[in-house]
Amino acid sequence: MISKAQIKLIKSLQQKKNREQMHLFIAEGKKIVEELLQSTTIEVVHVYASGNYFGNRPFTQVTEEEMKKISALTTPPNIMAICRIPQENAILPDLQKELALVLDDIRDPGNLGSIIRIADWFGIKHIFCTPECVDVYNPKVVQASMGSIARVQLDYKNLRSILSECAEKQSPVYGAKLDGTSILKEKLSTHGLLIIGNESNGISPELTKYITNAIKIPSYQGGAESLNAAMATAILCAEFRREAMRTEG
Amino acid sequence: MISKAQIKLIKSLQQKKNREQMHLFIAEGKKIVEELLQSTTIEVVHVYASGNYFGNRPFTQVTEEEMKKISALTTPPNIMAICRIPQENAILPDLQKELALVLDDIRDPGNLGSIIRIADWFGIKHIFCTPECVDVYNPKVVQASMGSIARVQLDYKNLRSILSECAEKQSPVYGAKLDGTSILKEKLSTHGLLIIGNESNGISPELTKYITNAIKIPSYQGGAESLNAAMATAILCAEFRREAMRTEG
Repeated sequence: MISKAQIKLIKSLQQKKNREQMHLFIAEGKKIVEELLQSTTIEVVHVYASGNYFGNRPFTQVTEEEMKKISALTTPPNIMAICRIPQENAILPDLQKELALVLDDIRDPGNLGSIIRIADWFGIKHIFCTPECVDVYNPKVVQASMGSIARVQLDYKNLRSILSECAEKQSPVYGAKLDGTSILKEKLSTHGLLIIGNESNGISPELTKYITNAIKIPSYQGGAESLNAAMATAILCAEFRREAMRTEG
Repeated sequence: MISKAQIKLIKSLQQKKNREQMHLFIAEGKKIVEELLQSTTIEVVHVYASGNYFGNRPFTQVTEEEMKKISALTTPPNIMAICRIPQENAILPDLQKELALVLDDIRDPGNLGSIIRIADWFGIKHIFCTPECVDVYNPKVVQASMGSIARVQLDYKNLRSILSECAEKQSPVYGAKLDGTSILKEKLSTHGLLIIGNESNGISPELTKYITNAIKIPSYQGGAESLNAAMATAILCAEFRREAMRTEG
């Protein structure tokens, strides 16, 4: 049984301003909730389930009807969790050793979620976002990331610092551009930044000026004019990790 | 100005059974409509636009309010087209020369649309689908494919024929499996079939028995358990085309 006030609170978390005010977000679906329950960085505050739940978190049994009311998904899941938004961590990656992503104006929640999952798959721990990017705690982003938000840190504040640091230490800044060098012809570094631009507008002029290596994904007898941002990120990350995976794997 | 009957007709095309009955589908957004207007395989029957339209197709000017009523998108576009579903083409690819995709139970429209776009980018002309896959003319698939449906042929009928032919002619059948050989350790052929499975259930036992080469995408220090079907397709297709792109590009 769930009260009207609770329904109202949960639904309010679909809006960014309410998430920010309450430092809470919702995660839906068995796989994602399970991953977050194991996370050391994200605290699961409360669980709502229409089926059985045997975990050790505060829990409310709800009906399928009630789940429909609180879910942000078209097909409501059996389980949903309210989680605490972790404190922003100001630790910046060491870009002389690590590769991090920069996302410029990625507005589609599904794309951002997929990019987080890709980063996680390829061992990238930090993603820097411009303020135009969709909020990582948007329910659709959380959903598409499939639990990877527990392991990849999204940072909406320190993009300028990291870019300056990169320039200062002469770490490479890769940017995906239509007129870049084919990734098959460029020796890709294992550290530095990789900037992914907005699908329609590409990388903004403001960020373009930081790019030291413009790269592109070649097409093969193809007709498509472009790839979506998440697809491009998948192919680029696979290529950046290729040498290391070949020699270590 | 658009009549109530027209609105009803257009909205009815959001359902597969109506699309099949009328052999029509809707395509929304400037880029997609432009690509379809140039297509030789897909005929644009009628255009609805809230802005200017200078093409040579039957055209109805609509208000933004009216566009909202006929659009299947959350954010209605300025332009929409009603297109004719082309006759199914029974020409099968020559799998001793070409690479084609097989999709097993891909139900998410965004994923299918992205996969079509990826295929187009990497010059793959044929995609065979199991009957469980979402319909290619679903408005969300059309939207996510960004016009690539004009260049890539989806075939929901000839999967069995192509698999038998493949077995008969001993063309390779690749399948993405968690216990497969790393794609970085396997010499990938330039022809044959590549099977992509459902994200939750993988490739069905029925299709698994046709696989001659089980392959997997290696991860790098990663935590994500899996990639979504579209991301996996992107990385796999890039790897299949890698040698050809390196030598030809």
